[in-house]
Amino acid sequence: MNAYQPRTDDMQFLLSRVLNAPAQLQALPAFAEADADLMQQVLEEAGKFVGEVIAPLNRDGDEIGAKWKDGAVTMPPGFKDAYQSFWQSGWPALASSTEDGGQGLPTVLEAMLYEMLSAANMGWTMAPGLLHGAYECIKHHASDDLKAQYLEKVATGEWLATMCLTEPHAGSDLGLARTKAVPLPDGQYAVSGTKIFISGGEHDLSDNIVHLVLARLPDAPPGPKGLSLFLVPKFYPDGSRSRVHCDRIEEKMGLHGSPTCVMRFDEAVCTIVGEPGKGLNAMFVMMNAARLHVALQGIGLLDATWQIADAYAQERRQMRAPGKGKSAAEADFISEHPAMRRILDTQRAWVDAGRVLAYRTALELDLIKHSPNADTQASAQRWCALVTPVMKSVFTHQAFHGGSDCLQVLGGHGYVREWGIEQIVRDARVAMIYEGTNEIQAIDLLVRKVLADGGTGMNALLDTIALDLPKAAKASTAAQARIQTLRAVTQQIVKASAQDAALAYRVADDYLRAVALVLMDWAWLRIEASVDDSTPNAQARWTIPAKALRSWVLPEFQVRSFIIVQQCTLAA
Amino acid sequence: MNAYQPRTDDMQFLLSRVLNAPAQLQALPAFAEADADLMQQVLEEAGKFVGEVIAPLNRDGDEIGAKWKDGAVTMPPGFKDAYQSFWQSGWPALASSTEDGGQGLPTVLEAMLYEMLSAANMGWTMAPGLLHGAYECIKHHASDDLKAQYLEKVATGEWLATMCLTEPHAGSDLGLARTKAVPLPDGQYAVSGTKIFISGGEHDLSDNIVHLVLARLPDAPPGPKGLSLFLVPKFYPDGSRSRVHCDRIEEKMGLHGSPTCVMRFDEAVCTIVGEPGKGLNAMFVMMNAARLHVALQGIGLLDATWQIADAYAQERRQMRAPGKGKSAAEADFISEHPAMRRILDTQRAWVDAGRVLAYRTALELDLIKHSPNADTQASAQRWCALVTPVMKSVFTHQAFHGGSDCLQVLGGHGYVREWGIEQIVRDARVAMIYEGTNEIQAIDLLVRKVLADGGTGMNALLDTIALDLPKAAKASTAAQARIQTLRAVTQQIVKASAQDAALAYRVADDYLRAVALVLMDWAWLRIEASVDDSTPNAQARWTIPAKALRSWVLPEFQVRSFIIVQQCTLAA
Repeated sequence: MNAYQPRTDDMQFLLSRVLNAPAQLQALPAFAEADADLMQQVLEEAGKFVGEVIAPLNRDGDEIGAKWKDGAVTMPPGFKDAYQSFWQSGWPALASSTEDGGQGLPTVLEAMLYEMLSAANMGWTMAPGLLHGAYECIKHHASDDLKAQYLEKVATGEWLATMCLTEPHAGSDLGLARTKAVPLPDGQYAVSGTKIFISGGEHDLSDNIVHLVLARLPDAPPGPKGLSLFLVPKFYPDGSRSRVHCDRIEEKMGLHGSPTCVMRFDEAVCTIVGEPGKGLNAMFVMMNAARLHVALQGIGLLDATWQIADAYAQERRQMRAPGKGKSAAEADFISEHPAMRRILDTQRAWVDAGRVLAYRTALELDLIKHSPNADTQASAQRWCALVTPVMKSVFTHQAFHGGSDCLQVLGGHGYVREWGIEQIVRDARVAMIYEGTNEIQAIDLLVRKVLADGGTGMNALLDTIALDLPKAAKASTAAQARIQTLRAVTQQIVKASAQDAALAYRVADDYLRAVALVLMDWAWLRIEASVDDSTPNAQARWTIPAKALRSWVLPEFQVRSFIIVQQCTLAA
Repeated sequence: MNAYQPRTDDMQFLLSRVLNAPAQLQALPAFAEADADLMQQVLEEAGKFVGEVIAPLNRDGDEIGAKWKDGAVTMPPGFKDAYQSFWQSGWPALASSTEDGGQGLPTVLEAMLYEMLSAANMGWTMAPGLLHGAYECIKHHASDDLKAQYLEKVATGEWLATMCLTEPHAGSDLGLARTKAVPLPDGQYAVSGTKIFISGGEHDLSDNIVHLVLARLPDAPPGPKGLSLFLVPKFYPDGSRSRVHCDRIEEKMGLHGSPTCVMRFDEAVCTIVGEPGKGLNAMFVMMNAARLHVALQGIGLLDATWQIADAYAQERRQMRAPGKGKSAAEADFISEHPAMRRILDTQRAWVDAGRVLAYRTALELDLIKHSPNADTQASAQRWCALVTPVMKSVFTHQAFHGGSDCLQVLGGHGYVREWGIEQIVRDARVAMIYEGTNEIQAIDLLVRKVLADGGTGMNALLDTIALDLPKAAKASTAAQARIQTLRAVTQQIVKASAQDAALAYRVADDYLRAVALVLMDWAWLRIEASVDDSTPNAQARWTIPAKALRSWVLPEFQVRSFIIVQQCTLAA
């Protein structure tokens, strides 16, 4: 009914006023020309394209979906034309290097583009979403020869790409993968095996598809260290078809606009990317960017459900709201009922906190790439390593669970297709699983990162946050107290883990959520500090969600730290 | 893949050992013959029917679904035969009076039957699920003449029934309904209007369908007091077709096996049920039974997702579990990973707590009907009034959100259709909406019931619970402390509500969940007190979920009471 429409003014406010991004970026030589005007212009053009071209295709993407027949996949109506227009307008290459045919703009603009695209049409967006990792992977690991053939095509999005990792018995644990690569006399390899859950493994959006495939050489050791990375296109440069076949596509809960393919490699002739046995390394370098991308899907999808719920609640009347005087209408607006108001304000608090954290992370990714300063780089590395898994987990969780809360605002009308909100909730569910399940994000944060250095890195991140809290704000005191609690809790886990190796795995999710709440608190304090008399509609737009965060969201911090302390005590 | 299978031994343990139901029921003259053996036999037969006949139809119910064509609805394959067999075997009439053609058995057996049916196939179960309310409504409010024509057909389930309440602009607020009833010279009425979201409004399961319709007489006042109740069948007793038409069925997130109909009444000749203007009263008498029924759907569906996740986790290996020694296998079972163990044990704690509360509520419904003792009746009324909205809300919430946690155990395999778990999550979502949204349950509990008597009834319920906590159990101390906190919080809301009429509406959900946690704590303490050396597999089956409840579920109580106290302070 009401398709998602990007609200670039809000995004612009967070980017420029709250994060001061244009000034930060212009200080980097790479982005000397990326001033506020240019960024605003790009954002508005992106919003226009998303709202006019991509959003209207979302319903057919779900209802008609991608169709498999005899190994070929036909995408839903309009998807191909939209994709051709998308890449020809240069959108996939927004943040790619100019030397590879890209526009060389900051990563944060790409991030904001994908937030909007995901919100508008997650199924369609899956296809270009996979390009960026493939681009980085080929750019940094492929031979010059391979780059000459593929890099620009992938950088510009003329050819789409896949990541072929998962196998029927190897999902979270890629080390179990069995696909084999046999060396050929000419230096190439013949790859055989079956990969599942391959998004965009086959489709009609682009003339060619470039597959990056994890496989095992004959002499490779078992486990993750035995995996190498290979490249095989659907069509070789000479136009011949590779022996890569799409055997079927999955029936799924949602995301019907994106074909999830079972791909069979039947002695397909491939080229190795990077060194033998270094396949996972080649993929993991782009992990932070990919996880940020999924976090942005969550933020966008939650915003999309919020938009529908908000529009519905302002239009429909049902029962009398408490504490309201008499009115001529036979009932009050749904938006006037406290339980519904609470849902709407709370989800808005999540969306904007998510934006601040995600945009900031994108800025840090640019600093990692382009800052000449080693301290800045180290700090940016730390931010990305610690904040990215938190964002991926909590914002994909919120897209599903908070999206379901938004659905509830519509009552029975939310459960039927008409308003389009149930589709978004179904689509959103998968983001809690892919790109590392949310449980794996929590283990990544606590076990692999925080415990690995005894909490030093986390303390340094908390120093950064604590110093950045607005001193004048009354709520900063509570924020500082939570930061202190989090430091103490971190040390308790470090200590108790010596007695009980499984402890951290049991409380990893509680820890991740406690960190998320501290980060969201910081984000909203920064937002409030940026609001002034010139901010349009400041009370309704920013003050009310900030209050909702403090009333309904932040109290969860107590229970998370309580659970962790209780488990540490049991472990001791 | 793995269809749900009832585990009647667990249910039997809760019924007989934990709740001591057979002895309690046999003390009532109406159930003098319902001994433990009879109840067990009925339960086992029911489990067999559900597992063998109903569960296998669930997948087709979703994938093929109910089909509308030219006003007629064809149900999914096998649904009709299964329904004919169901009613002819006497299952719908299990707890109906013997004088109406029923078996006169206790309500708790009907409750357990519906838990299993819902778990096995929620779409199919919607059809008979609506019979019981219609039966009570006709029995208690219809004229003798109407009863002679319809009561036995509905009691036995030979004819199915609907409740036609919702209209396009009247969902939670039935007072806005506009359907009109015009008196005819012969004492009947011509009803005109459109009703939406009518489950089973049209289908081919039974020879006839009996509609109970809320409509407004010409001289009726606006609002809920202007509504009267009417009965109109699809076919009148003389075989002629009524002017009731199914204009379309909804496309929904799930529950495709149950047609959700738009019903058009085109001057349909109806008979009034009960007095003019008392339409809502006639429907509301059966509200507790209907809400219990929906709570049981939640419990059953959560159990169904748990069964799939548990089977999957015990079969698949992925990565090394922490703290485990070396093993010959290349990875450990998913069930051995702490984050997955936590999900599985936690959801099991929810399911069994739900059973204890739901079965106990069904027993209380029988006491209301059959106990000769006024005190017992009053106490049973209080239990049902206060516990029913809590159960309806939290167990339907848990079926969706906890069911999604179970889906997570399967990773990507949970998001695709193969294992059937994503269907259950989609099906479950609607139960948070219908039979009074979960927000309305919370308002019903706090505003209409707890605040209405200043907390007296709630305190009396908490007395009952507190006295029933096993004195020997160490965990009873924490339970008593939470009960004291809940009493204090209740009084704070009573007091603060005098200053702020909207306060209770803002915190109603927190209050409901705090009550739920106290009730679940009681349920599990009762379960543990019933386990002894003779209980099979007591540690794994009962002790571990009890521990999971205390570690992961009960801490939420703190945050709920904190939020309420904070809001009361703000209101003061």
